[in-house]
Amino acid sequence: MNQPYPGRDITLSSRRFTTVRFSPNGQSLVSVNDEGTIKLWSVADGSLLKKLTGHSDRITSVDFSSDGQMLASGSTDHTIKLWHLDQGTELQTFKGHRHRVSHISFSPDNQLLASASLDGTVKLWDVKTGVELRTLKGHQHWVTSVSFSPDGRTLASAGSDSTIKLWNLELELEGFMQLGCNWLESYLANHSEEQEIRKICQTSNRPTDLPL
Amino acid sequence: MNQPYPGRDITLSSRRFTTVRFSPNGQSLVSVNDEGTIKLWSVADGSLLKKLTGHSDRITSVDFSSDGQMLASGSTDHTIKLWHLDQGTELQTFKGHRHRVSHISFSPDNQLLASASLDGTVKLWDVKTGVELRTLKGHQHWVTSVSFSPDGRTLASAGSDSTIKLWNLELELEGFMQLGCNWLESYLANHSEEQEIRKICQTSNRPTDLPL
Repeated sequence: MNQPYPGRDITLSSRRFTTVRFSPNGQSLVSVNDEGTIKLWSVADGSLLKKLTGHSDRITSVDFSSDGQMLASGSTDHTIKLWHLDQGTELQTFKGHRHRVSHISFSPDNQLLASASLDGTVKLWDVKTGVELRTLKGHQHWVTSVSFSPDGRTLASAGSDSTIKLWNLELELEGFMQLGCNWLESYLANHSEEQEIRKICQTSNRPTDLPL
Repeated sequence: MNQPYPGRDITLSSRRFTTVRFSPNGQSLVSVNDEGTIKLWSVADGSLLKKLTGHSDRITSVDFSSDGQMLASGSTDHTIKLWHLDQGTELQTFKGHRHRVSHISFSPDNQLLASASLDGTVKLWDVKTGVELRTLKGHQHWVTSVSFSPDGRTLASAGSDSTIKLWNLELELEGFMQLGCNWLESYLANHSEEQEIRKICQTSNRPTDLPL
């Protein structure tokens, strides 16, 4: 017990190393170094499975979707990236923040991603389409942390202005969806294969139990 | 949506504010400031429920037990504290690290707590008794992150020496328990009310499916 497994040390090329997390299925490890690279490692033999490159600066926060399919990463390069964990491929880059992204979190149903930034805002992103749904303004300084309530109806954000803010996500659910659909209108007109999104946007009255 | 709930802004006395997390039951929020104080807030009305004081320096990491009953906090004051969330009381202080505690994590079954420290070690603690079970040595520099595998059998640690180490927790489970029981022997002799611990320690052959 005072020694790790024989052959189970993983040596990283990074000078300095910050975070390690088991993936939800326990078969791989995700490591984040301070150069903007995410690495996926095999737990079985310690081999490097994938290098997820793309961020141009330090990664400040990572979060797994609860189904273990996706990983999101927030960076000081102002962007958030969404990765397919098994395939090791980039799914989306969320651009919009004007300063470092300090913290990110998936909603409990994995449909939304919330991001906190040193630009003083919180943003909500549609995971599937990559659309920026809302910018939540109110903090007077850096926003450093976001947290969804377990039922996904409320988001808490905390900032260097010494306040916590609670945002009611449910109240404006329909507004959210409509905005996203408006933005997607021209895209949908040219992409007949996006049946699922089309169907969602054609439903005029969203049920209140929609998975937010 | 562009404004938080009316009356749902929480103003903190702290100069600067870092982390907010919903408790697992969603009824309270935990905030951590950079002065070593943890605060519990009511989600319903934004009122301050409890102030958890005791750390003498900045809190670097908090983790909820998966049943939502306990909160653990690691600090630059070299200690880890365990709190009863509903009662807002301190249950244990884990002392032993010789430098800042950088990251902590409950095991999936909430029986163990793992701590990473800038003293270069990982420590495993028995949540119920507060006993330090093991010091895992091997990193050549700061340890900055720990993560339990979902089945609780493996612990990953990462450090500034650019390595991830995987520790097999299962191999030495019986040794763990025996060590803990040895330490507790004199205590148990004088505390007849500790029936549960006594029973565990009197079981000579621990089953392999023991909740570790």
